[in-house]
Amino acid sequence: MKKSLGAKTILYPTPTLLIGSYDEAGKPNVMTAAWGGVCCSIPPCVAVSLRKATYTYGNMMNRKAFTVNIPSENQVAVVDFFGIASGKKVDKFAVSGWTPVKSDLVDAPFVKECSLVLECRVIHTYEIGLHTQFIGEIMDVKADDSVMDENGKLLPEKVKPFFYAPEDHRYFGMGGELGKAHAIGKSFIKTSG
Amino acid sequence: MKKSLGAKTILYPTPTLLIGSYDEAGKPNVMTAAWGGVCCSIPPCVAVSLRKATYTYGNMMNRKAFTVNIPSENQVAVVDFFGIASGKKVDKFAVSGWTPVKSDLVDAPFVKECSLVLECRVIHTYEIGLHTQFIGEIMDVKADDSVMDENGKLLPEKVKPFFYAPEDHRYFGMGGELGKAHAIGKSFIKTSG
Repeated sequence: MKKSLGAKTILYPTPTLLIGSYDEAGKPNVMTAAWGGVCCSIPPCVAVSLRKATYTYGNMMNRKAFTVNIPSENQVAVVDFFGIASGKKVDKFAVSGWTPVKSDLVDAPFVKECSLVLECRVIHTYEIGLHTQFIGEIMDVKADDSVMDENGKLLPEKVKPFFYAPEDHRYFGMGGELGKAHAIGKSFIKTSG
Repeated sequence: MKKSLGAKTILYPTPTLLIGSYDEAGKPNVMTAAWGGVCCSIPPCVAVSLRKATYTYGNMMNRKAFTVNIPSENQVAVVDFFGIASGKKVDKFAVSGWTPVKSDLVDAPFVKECSLVLECRVIHTYEIGLHTQFIGEIMDVKADDSVMDENGKLLPEKVKPFFYAPEDHRYFGMGGELGKAHAIGKSFIKTSG
């Protein structure tokens, strides 16, 4: 039996995305966002929603660019800090000791300490309500050697992404492999033959 | 050192969302979508991107409603099937033996076998490219008693959501708790004094 919990933003898993941007003076900032994800395959795009009150909102509106950086589970405390603090008041890179790196293709810094980063240019914005959604075209994905196998294949087990559970307000790690996509469901297709 | 992997939709984690809808004749359908997530807190909204070629695309355009159903890791094979097969050709509920349930607030069925479901009404669509993004206002969230504690608090550990790794094409389960959000990062705020 299902019980109603009301109209809330409960969805599992939501990602923990570190959004990199430059302010008007060129100071790099980074913030944590859980409201986002991939939103198109061709062109490859990612959506991220931000409140107008965030420092990153103004940066992204001005620069029309951002990066999405995927943190690893051993970085969870820093990620939480990047979500609590505001770039208006503190230099989050300086406090954390983390390193902004100039992107190759977009006007936003990526985070050196994240093993997987996406360089994005803003192609659309839509004000939904408290949050405004930014759609960014993914111009390039970069990954550290350390999270790839000997053939250059990216391995999620090495990236060790984690997720945020809304309402519950906890972070959870990644578990083991459950199966191959577009494969383990084929048994049902035979059944329906 | 980071290597360029090109412009691709690589982001971890992406969710495995089961989207429920009715066709013109009232037949329920369900499909798996990984391109989606929460996109606004007030009003509470979720975004899901679909290709025009999917059966669900037409259903959602016509009915202006959908459900988001969160599957558990022991349901991964069915979830994969729901992503491979098309509702144009097969009755996915009939083949899987799963059960569509009439929603209370929107014109779309939720999935009885999923412990966590969201009833959504379409408030905006945007054609990005291959995918069209639907923004749905979350009208209600419902959860099974079995995934809540004795006080009615929803526990992610009981829902056991899993995620899809794009490009890698594998599903991964949920790991252990890493820490409390808006809490474990506070140590850095003291540092910045």
